[in-house]
Amino acid sequence: MKNVIVGQSGGPTAVINCSLAGVYATALEHGDKMGKVLGMRNGIQGLMERRYVDMGEYIRDDFDVEILKRTPSSFLGSCRYKLPDPKQNEAVFEKVFGILNELEVGYFFYIGGNDSMDTINKLHTYGEKIGSPIRFLGVPKTVDNDLAVTDHSPGFGSAAKYVATSTKELILDARVYNNGAVTIVEAMGRNTGWLAASAALAKGPDSIGPDLVFLPEIAFDLDGFLDKVSILAQQKGHSPVIVVSEGIQLADGRYVSELGREDVPSDAFGHIQLMGTASYLAQQVRNKLGAKVRAVEFATLQRSAAHLQSQVDAIGAFAVGQHAVNAAAEGETNKVIIFKRLSSRPYAFETCSMELAKMANIEKHVPLEWITPTKDHVTQDYIDYALPLIQGEVAPYFVNGMPRHIRLP
Amino acid sequence: MKNVIVGQSGGPTAVINCSLAGVYATALEHGDKMGKVLGMRNGIQGLMERRYVDMGEYIRDDFDVEILKRTPSSFLGSCRYKLPDPKQNEAVFEKVFGILNELEVGYFFYIGGNDSMDTINKLHTYGEKIGSPIRFLGVPKTVDNDLAVTDHSPGFGSAAKYVATSTKELILDARVYNNGAVTIVEAMGRNTGWLAASAALAKGPDSIGPDLVFLPEIAFDLDGFLDKVSILAQQKGHSPVIVVSEGIQLADGRYVSELGREDVPSDAFGHIQLMGTASYLAQQVRNKLGAKVRAVEFATLQRSAAHLQSQVDAIGAFAVGQHAVNAAAEGETNKVIIFKRLSSRPYAFETCSMELAKMANIEKHVPLEWITPTKDHVTQDYIDYALPLIQGEVAPYFVNGMPRHIRLP
Repeated sequence: MKNVIVGQSGGPTAVINCSLAGVYATALEHGDKMGKVLGMRNGIQGLMERRYVDMGEYIRDDFDVEILKRTPSSFLGSCRYKLPDPKQNEAVFEKVFGILNELEVGYFFYIGGNDSMDTINKLHTYGEKIGSPIRFLGVPKTVDNDLAVTDHSPGFGSAAKYVATSTKELILDARVYNNGAVTIVEAMGRNTGWLAASAALAKGPDSIGPDLVFLPEIAFDLDGFLDKVSILAQQKGHSPVIVVSEGIQLADGRYVSELGREDVPSDAFGHIQLMGTASYLAQQVRNKLGAKVRAVEFATLQRSAAHLQSQVDAIGAFAVGQHAVNAAAEGETNKVIIFKRLSSRPYAFETCSMELAKMANIEKHVPLEWITPTKDHVTQDYIDYALPLIQGEVAPYFVNGMPRHIRLP
Repeated sequence: MKNVIVGQSGGPTAVINCSLAGVYATALEHGDKMGKVLGMRNGIQGLMERRYVDMGEYIRDDFDVEILKRTPSSFLGSCRYKLPDPKQNEAVFEKVFGILNELEVGYFFYIGGNDSMDTINKLHTYGEKIGSPIRFLGVPKTVDNDLAVTDHSPGFGSAAKYVATSTKELILDARVYNNGAVTIVEAMGRNTGWLAASAALAKGPDSIGPDLVFLPEIAFDLDGFLDKVSILAQQKGHSPVIVVSEGIQLADGRYVSELGREDVPSDAFGHIQLMGTASYLAQQVRNKLGAKVRAVEFATLQRSAAHLQSQVDAIGAFAVGQHAVNAAAEGETNKVIIFKRLSSRPYAFETCSMELAKMANIEKHVPLEWITPTKDHVTQDYIDYALPLIQGEVAPYFVNGMPRHIRLP
């Protein structure tokens, strides 16, 4: 009988706690092998400071599990700590394994993105070297959907549902005055355009969808952009809505968000004004076209809107946590759980365990053939891929008019 | 038998189409007196260009009515047109009444805020002078909740539910890294703080709520603000979340959002960079405290999030449209429909018609006694007032993972 420890790392998603619930609830089912379920506070960084909780003290029954699944952000807190190379610095690993042994941990689960997979891989490598029996499993998450090999990343579907729904609502709002105003919307995605592209899901019989969508996969042409916006804004009665990834870059590699910083001199304190990509483009449209422009940033709303979870995403996020625990119980280690798509219509998937090295430090981009030849929208292939991932809803538990969450003291 | 005409004016809300549905569905019930229901496109401005639709061609049955109620933005489009003084300029009124008579209109309904009530009042005044039998009724709406006399404004409850829910989600997200980062959230409200204050509804057994809330009703003290944020950011493990109205002003009357414009010189084109209130304050906190800061603006999301309608608000918005038609059928004119609160717990209201002049051009502010003596939060009196207005949910009709709306071609 060994204890379980679980942590969350990197940016949160609207369903990252579904994966935590999957690990927790499944570990309880392995009562013959698994004892307490401990939670690292703020990931591996908190563990090194001996900050952890006994999950059972806070998640006391199946109803608490359900509230946990509906709670945004990372229940256990997060970190962005990068472990050193075990060959260069053994001290850190000695400390971590000292604490894990002290806590009688036999199963280690880490819910995170690329960097977190790297963390597990390093822990496993060191553990193998010292002959530790601890099993290390990765549970994927990221709103960016940039994890390799897996069909999709848990967290992406809910963020996409939020972006698509909010964009659809904004499109109706934008055209209300019939004045040709331009709206520029910014979605997350530093290097990949999966999430910005999801705005295209707004299109349907009741919505024209966004006019243009720009992704970081294609070099951004500012003059071409202004020309396109100018043509759209001149259409009678039309109010263009344009969606951009925060990480779009010029052909020379500069981020559009960096251009904003160049334009605006530093203030009296020597600090430069940081400007978002949408704000910068809005300023350009305003200056060069004289059009009325509004910039909307989804900011952290798009990763924390648990009130608009995708059911497919929530079920999948739970399933990868569940599979990780079952795999660990059967002796697997140094693995990450991924999705294989069996069918798109109807959507069907299975979870599988895979060698960690195949995922760690690899970024999956939107395939270039899923971007239109005009480089300003996505094709039906993208829609066919993403639409199954936003299906279904998970109703929040509303108490007194507000969604109820669960949190650590 | 006379026709009905209805229009929408000013900024939209998440439930403004519930009022349109209330007018439309109720007019159909008065088949003995009321004929076609015409919709002005883009309000009175569109009417003057003879742009209108026959609502019956687009809202064909009770199911369409339900979809309309769940559709954000103004179905008929909006305008910000201000009618001249009928004593100064009769030509405009001759034109409007010419069109109304041509369309055989006997009942005129206008869904809007303060300015719209002024429009109706002027139309009535002119109509009375020329002996027109057309009845003019106002149906209130505004997310700002600044309309006088009525218990609350339709549209406010849903916007408040969105602001409170999103703030609650952001508070969990903000504290995820345990790094003392500061989040500054901006809500609508140029002159009144009703909506920013609704963030306080996030507080509960599962949330500490926002740390500070600043409203335009109280002069904003920038140095005092920075001192308070500094103290909060130094609390171990705390990540402060602060909510501000877009319209907070210094004691000398300058808007905080104006200060941003002064700080940043104009660019090569001679244009100054417009900056939001939250962005400006974030910059100040970054510069003066060196803290990690994020600004989040709810932008037009807060008025278009029909996916998070308050049921109390949706029912009320329908009821004022309904009451307006019933009042007109009984011969009333130059009236606006308001809510009277009968009880807070449980919430019970009735609708009444009131002289338009009592509402037009008057702004209702948050009572100063509902703001804490420290001038940085609201009291329990505000919570007791606002909490009933966010009760209940209206589930969107999800089709293929997305809320279904209805729109004019």
